[in-house]
Amino acid sequence: MKLEKIIKAAGQLARPHCVRDGDRFRLKDVDPGDTGGFGADDKPRAQEALKMGIDAMVTMQDMLYAQDRRAVLLIFQAMDAAGKDSAIKHVMSGVNPQGCQVASFKAPSDEELDHDYLWRCIRHLPERGRIGIFNRSYYEEVLVVRVHPEILAREKLPQALISRDIWKQRFQDIRAFERYLSRNGVVVRKFFLHVSRQEQKKRFLERIEDPAKNWKFSAADVRERGHWKEYMAAYEEMIRHTATEEAPWYVVPANHKWYTRIVVAAAVIDALGSLDLKYPRISPAQQRELAAAAKALQAE
Amino acid sequence: MKLEKIIKAAGQLARPHCVRDGDRFRLKDVDPGDTGGFGADDKPRAQEALKMGIDAMVTMQDMLYAQDRRAVLLIFQAMDAAGKDSAIKHVMSGVNPQGCQVASFKAPSDEELDHDYLWRCIRHLPERGRIGIFNRSYYEEVLVVRVHPEILAREKLPQALISRDIWKQRFQDIRAFERYLSRNGVVVRKFFLHVSRQEQKKRFLERIEDPAKNWKFSAADVRERGHWKEYMAAYEEMIRHTATEEAPWYVVPANHKWYTRIVVAAAVIDALGSLDLKYPRISPAQQRELAAAAKALQAE
Repeated sequence: MKLEKIIKAAGQLARPHCVRDGDRFRLKDVDPGDTGGFGADDKPRAQEALKMGIDAMVTMQDMLYAQDRRAVLLIFQAMDAAGKDSAIKHVMSGVNPQGCQVASFKAPSDEELDHDYLWRCIRHLPERGRIGIFNRSYYEEVLVVRVHPEILAREKLPQALISRDIWKQRFQDIRAFERYLSRNGVVVRKFFLHVSRQEQKKRFLERIEDPAKNWKFSAADVRERGHWKEYMAAYEEMIRHTATEEAPWYVVPANHKWYTRIVVAAAVIDALGSLDLKYPRISPAQQRELAAAAKALQAE
Repeated sequence: MKLEKIIKAAGQLARPHCVRDGDRFRLKDVDPGDTGGFGADDKPRAQEALKMGIDAMVTMQDMLYAQDRRAVLLIFQAMDAAGKDSAIKHVMSGVNPQGCQVASFKAPSDEELDHDYLWRCIRHLPERGRIGIFNRSYYEEVLVVRVHPEILAREKLPQALISRDIWKQRFQDIRAFERYLSRNGVVVRKFFLHVSRQEQKKRFLERIEDPAKNWKFSAADVRERGHWKEYMAAYEEMIRHTATEEAPWYVVPANHKWYTRIVVAAAVIDALGSLDLKYPRISPAQQRELAAAAKALQAE
């Protein structure tokens, strides 16, 4: 299939899951079990499409790298076991690691707490020409920090600055920051992998029963599960306040991993496709240089 | 003199030079030769006051460090030979270097150009408890880059993002960024050292004539001088659009170095004084621990 056709198909697949204007967004309108009309027997076809999509992504990443003007930032947020790691692995595995980097954000270090909360993420922003992936991000500041006020208390903020408006302020600051990024050539796309509470339980049990998956499970994960409702409220608020034209959220149904991956891949292809990427043209002077170099080589 | 009195006096001295609302600002209303009503014979008294001020600053810096909640960011911008380096040296030399760091920003490196323009400055933001000084800063992006469009062309921005609104966008982004910083405990104060064209000529000639000062002079400095009018227009615009309540500009008369230093010191004292700094109180439990430790030591 030609690149333009793949880009078009990807846009059609991704768009229903894209939130560019948060005002109207309600999390309850999204079904975590949604598969976009594809049935279980479409799975092999979906996998075929994913492979084709990754090839297209690889081509465009190469042009992004050659052009060296824009960077792409993909942010992943989700409850535990929603499939962040596996989506990153399956969607991004084909691309050239020279042009792609993943940063995972866990609990902040002492040095990081000594700075504003964007600081540690900014250090890992992708360079021009590259795709950067944030596995969790500064959005934790309006998620886990909101659900657990004791974490906010540990952030070493002056007491006078912890106002009732702090979440609104953070939303405003994050919006402004992402607008700044987009004005400076960073294309921001955000993914919330939306898994159901029931499916999370199933996946946790698998992690406990399968020795090969044991390392992925920690008792703390079950504790966080106890705050499900508060988390869902925090995610909804986050999307309502930070989904914008220049930095949209994709709310990706995550009960079926094969569908999650295809939506994420489609969204990335759609984003890359919108950049009108081309290999840089060479100036007539450079062309003459190339011709002269070829002549010199042939004369050797 | 007691700390409170020094803080009050510093506030009175600094305030006439402080711009918190840029709308009404006009550069031509500021006389670079202004000495705040002090005569040439007041110079020794001014130096005495500066010494006292630095002592106050040292005391407050120590509390800032102990409290470990706020950071102070001082940004210096000026034409060449306006006295940035000497103001930093004379005002900040007394403070504990453990709690103070200076970052000088020259022409950006290749790695830096591969990122958005705030990136390289953000990496050098002071930690909580510290005073950070930016000798030039991201404000160069609306000064030298504005006066020399060829520099903007080298910034590797996608062509589509270089719009007519780019300076307005940069002002808006910088305002939002500084608001974010102040919300997260970074106290931002900005200094434009305003020297006259005539005084700059005198200082350049001194640098050329005095072998010990030769290293400070480069022929490029004279070339920049040729753009004086454009620079003044850019500085005025910058101050008009980025002087805010939370991150004010001090427009400091800079024809007389002794007065420049005293205004800068006063502004820093005023900023630190407004933070209501105290050594952290120790909890009853910690007090008991201290008492137990003292007892154990005495029993040795």
